[in-house]
Amino acid sequence: MPAIRSVATGTSKRPFIVGVMGGAQADEAAMRTAYRLGELIAGRGWVLLNGGRNAGVMDASARGAAEHGGLTIGILPDATPDQASAYVRVPICTGMGSARNSINVLSSDVVVACPGGAGTLSEIALALKHGKSVITIGYDARPCFGNDDYAHRLFEAASAEEAVAIIERRFSLTEEESIRLG
Amino acid sequence: MPAIRSVATGTSKRPFIVGVMGGAQADEAAMRTAYRLGELIAGRGWVLLNGGRNAGVMDASARGAAEHGGLTIGILPDATPDQASAYVRVPICTGMGSARNSINVLSSDVVVACPGGAGTLSEIALALKHGKSVITIGYDARPCFGNDDYAHRLFEAASAEEAVAIIERRFSLTEEESIRLG
Amino acid sequence: MPAIRSVATGTSKRPFIVGVMGGAQADEAAMRTAYRLGELIAGRGWVLLNGGRNAGVMDASARGAAEHGGLTIGILPDATPDQASAYVRVPICTGMGSARNSINVLSSDVVVACPGGAGTLSEIALALKHGKSVITIGYDARPCFGNDDYAHRLFEAASAEEAVAIIERRFSLTEEESIRLG
Amino acid sequence: MPAIRSVATGTSKRPFIVGVMGGAQADEAAMRTAYRLGELIAGRGWVLLNGGRNAGVMDASARGAAEHGGLTIGILPDATPDQASAYVRVPICTGMGSARNSINVLSSDVVVACPGGAGTLSEIALALKHGKSVITIGYDARPCFGNDDYAHRLFEAASAEEAVAIIERRFSLTEEESIRLG
Repeated sequence: MPAIRSVATGTSKRPFIVGVMGGAQADEAAMRTAYRLGELIAGRGWVLLNGGRNAGVMDASARGAAEHGGLTIGILPDATPDQASAYVRVPICTGMGSARNSINVLSSDVVVACPGGAGTLSEIALALKHGKSVITIGYDARPCFGNDDYAHRLFEAASAEEAVAIIERRFSLTEEESIRLG
Repeated sequence: MPAIRSVATGTSKRPFIVGVMGGAQADEAAMRTAYRLGELIAGRGWVLLNGGRNAGVMDASARGAAEHGGLTIGILPDATPDQASAYVRVPICTGMGSARNSINVLSSDVVVACPGGAGTLSEIALALKHGKSVITIGYDARPCFGNDDYAHRLFEAASAEEAVAIIERRFSLTEEESIRLG
Repeated sequence: MPAIRSVATGTSKRPFIVGVMGGAQADEAAMRTAYRLGELIAGRGWVLLNGGRNAGVMDASARGAAEHGGLTIGILPDATPDQASAYVRVPICTGMGSARNSINVLSSDVVVACPGGAGTLSEIALALKHGKSVITIGYDARPCFGNDDYAHRLFEAASAEEAVAIIERRFSLTEEESIRLG
Repeated sequence: MPAIRSVATGTSKRPFIVGVMGGAQADEAAMRTAYRLGELIAGRGWVLLNGGRNAGVMDASARGAAEHGGLTIGILPDATPDQASAYVRVPICTGMGSARNSINVLSSDVVVACPGGAGTLSEIALALKHGKSVITIGYDARPCFGNDDYAHRLFEAASAEEAVAIIERRFSLTEEESIRLG
């Protein structure tokens, strides 16, 4: 059971960061799940980090978090915030295209992957490579990652609620221990 | 006079982001200035963004902001937050070394450069190249950037207070217009 | 049928670049295939580009090409060439860790993926996302990429020879048209 | 006196890589110097590495090398080779904008900086930060880098010939020791 990173700082503890990945094109159901996931993340005082664009899972998850008081960080592929989601509070402009996918996963304490295309799969792969745990919602990515070193860190959830429950269990985050912003 | 970027979002406006650059090794005076700069940035509700490490100007400016309620974002050269300042609330782990300097300046609405070495000068240069305004504190970088296209965006301030005054003037940020977190 | 990129230059045409991906840990059979692939690439006057390290598929494919007169370019995750394969002629030191995977695929005219782990799968994914054709050797990655937009650019070969035959067919590269170094 | 990196490989030694930096906009004199520099680099069997674009110092230095049989590598800011110099033999497509400046200097054994703007100055700064030696042609960058740690690695040359002479002296590269392609 991995220990949660909790750094005592001068003013408070560092918040837990959940990376939410998923397609720029997403259907109604995926959008609703992403929105709900953002809401649940905000409700626990976690930071939501995603790819930052004003489209698909990125926009929906940021909206869910922002509309429920959560802090949202968007790691944009672009050099400007012109295409940032209006629900991303802090747009990080990388100007690096898909190379920023690596930043997305390295900066996340855990990665939740909503449905998406090849970009999302690249993020699942990079997260597993770098020792992160990954929870997919609504599909099973395990056939793509047969290696035993990955299997025990790759989970499938049926819903946003189940994804958050897996995170709480895996990181031993009780409500009390949950690290809150502010 | 450049217009401040202010994006109406679902819940509030996007905060103004001030990038604070400067050396990992810094003397007493530079540390005090960096701390004060962080304090002033936090007091205006701006976000402080820097290189994220627990050293020199990065640590001091993050501390000044964090101890006065400001949001601090650190764009780390590292793949993990092990060397992050305890005063950085959201560490962005790039794993890219100095290539992250480009992210620092692209993500900042304005750049303030405290004393530093070649890394800091590279950030001043990249900021100017990408159309950002830069304010140095305590030294004059203009001899290095003779080009007329840069000169009108490069300012020298004698103190943290003057640097913030230049930002407010240049971006027409009155107290009322200042975009606040929360 | 995509047209091969062939740019008339001041002195000659630009060579065709084949990106060879695959694990840093590889078994005997994968190493032999990678070596043979490098040999075939060199024999056609193509440039071999890979991840550059002195391990696994990277080292074996570079060796196969270098020992048969081919030009080998290694895009290293590291900031120094200390861990570069001795068979990489030009080591490109990115200092960017896995973010360099994006460079690997963007710089390749076509990608051949030998067996590997999550890093290799991230490269297949990024290559497909950015419109490249991908040929896997000895395994079928299509179940991971159901999307119709990807399926017609993702091929499975049983051997290095078949992989090269697919490239020649797909890019209409006859021996005469093959663009040669020097 | 730094030792030149020379790695015995399976087929030959690794060539010495000279990074040539300089503006995308350059006057007649700078273009002639860059062309001559490329010619001299090619004549010694060194590899020329630059920013890759079909403009200014990048295009002129690549042309000088390519027209004299040299190998030219271009580290492009772009995701495609559309804007690559026709004299760049191997375009490396980073898709990373100015973040690629860091790759330019890390991949070079030594950096020569022709006249340029802020982008070029950022490369001089990054090169010095990462322990590389830098030779400017036609201007003195030392006032921008007062630090003693940098001064002894920063040289000014009056011409392409003098820049190459400084490299040969500093790296103890006699004609015999010069590592040749092929």
